[in-house]
Amino acid sequence: MQKPSRHKIVIIGCGNVAWHLAKQLAGLKKYDLFIYNHQPNVLLNEFKTKLKCSITPNLNKIVTDADLYFICVADKFISTVAKKIKDPKAIVIHTSGSAKINELGNRANAAVFYPLQTFSKNDEVNWKETPVIVEAMNTATKSKILDLAKRFSNTVTSLNYKERLELHLAAVLVNNFTNALYVSADELIGKSHKILLPLIKQTVLKLEKLDARAAQTGPAKRGDKKVMEKHLKLLSKNKDLKKIYLQLSNLIVKQQTKKHA
Amino acid sequence: MQKPSRHKIVIIGCGNVAWHLAKQLAGLKKYDLFIYNHQPNVLLNEFKTKLKCSITPNLNKIVTDADLYFICVADKFISTVAKKIKDPKAIVIHTSGSAKINELGNRANAAVFYPLQTFSKNDEVNWKETPVIVEAMNTATKSKILDLAKRFSNTVTSLNYKERLELHLAAVLVNNFTNALYVSADELIGKSHKILLPLIKQTVLKLEKLDARAAQTGPAKRGDKKVMEKHLKLLSKNKDLKKIYLQLSNLIVKQQTKKHA
Repeated sequence: MQKPSRHKIVIIGCGNVAWHLAKQLAGLKKYDLFIYNHQPNVLLNEFKTKLKCSITPNLNKIVTDADLYFICVADKFISTVAKKIKDPKAIVIHTSGSAKINELGNRANAAVFYPLQTFSKNDEVNWKETPVIVEAMNTATKSKILDLAKRFSNTVTSLNYKERLELHLAAVLVNNFTNALYVSADELIGKSHKILLPLIKQTVLKLEKLDARAAQTGPAKRGDKKVMEKHLKLLSKNKDLKKIYLQLSNLIVKQQTKKHA
Repeated sequence: MQKPSRHKIVIIGCGNVAWHLAKQLAGLKKYDLFIYNHQPNVLLNEFKTKLKCSITPNLNKIVTDADLYFICVADKFISTVAKKIKDPKAIVIHTSGSAKINELGNRANAAVFYPLQTFSKNDEVNWKETPVIVEAMNTATKSKILDLAKRFSNTVTSLNYKERLELHLAAVLVNNFTNALYVSADELIGKSHKILLPLIKQTVLKLEKLDARAAQTGPAKRGDKKVMEKHLKLLSKNKDLKKIYLQLSNLIVKQQTKKHA
């Protein structure tokens, strides 16, 4: 009797996205996983011991018949890495929100699998709730990638490059930029954000029920100039934050005006 | 046998803070609650029916011996409202993060009870986790207000005006300004933030474990100019957001440099 065939997946890179992809795929128990990194890295050992991945020192010799390749490296290295995959029919996927599909070269089965999430190796990721954005060069490959993505997430969406980049930019706003405001808030009060955390959490909880525009509150929304002047006075020695305060307050006024337009 | 004396608390105003204060105090079942508003308001009826408060049309005649007065009105009305309380020894408290204690007038037992939270009438508030900031004109009053605050919250802190205002400004950054970024993100992708919500939540969950500065990720932190140029191109018709993108990216660079200083 023949064993049921297992799929071979090669993951290129050993960063946070590679880790959480491998972890999820390992949990599905139907794939043989291979990790390749362009240079030795201490992290590779954890892929081996904790996730039972094989470490492959050469992309084309050891894994001759991989079912698909996930390229999880910084945008600027995607095209170089993709060139190392010699089989022109291989399904080759990158996981970037901001790189075009053709960074993968002129290959028939190029695809994109972009998880809209922030990954840290030591944090758990709720894959089921993490939207995955898919793009592919042809419908057969797209169908395969959509099926695979559905093993990760309940929210799988097919988008073109511009839509994906808009989503990536939106992610920068709600993740990187809000986090920068958390840092500035910590600096302002000269202590950790722990005292601000209940407010931060409630701000997000509101979004479960309300549109962000409807959830807005505060002096800029109320047009409370007196309070805003007090804040600006506190910021008199902090030019950068003062500018940001004025611009974001101005943005709030415009956003709230639009609402009634 | 004499009944144990119940405390009389007057709440002035019928907005979100008044509502959640009254709701919590009603739950403690040891206070008689009176609500005063400078003009009739349909909301008053809910205080009466749902929270068993008495509606008082005159501050000084009906409630002659209140134990304390909570003034929960916009900053600019605090001093006018405080003047209506004729007893010079009354404990009179405002709940603002940005108003000085002397807005309450020259009275012996003025105090501040500032809950660091965003309140919406229809949302539950986790008072135990909501920091309450206290200030008072004398130690006896401060001690009373601290005791009362501890019936609300596990995090009660005594701060002076400048420290409270800094916290209020920090609250504007982490609540109003992050929410403005959520609105802009929604506008960018032309749909609701629901698709961004898992990322938004994970951004906040990270703060449980990490300092915000250590949690930072993204193109500005990595100095990934190519990705930033792609984002700025998308924003070419949105001057306001483009400026904010540049300034917040610049802020991130400076924040991350400080880390290593």
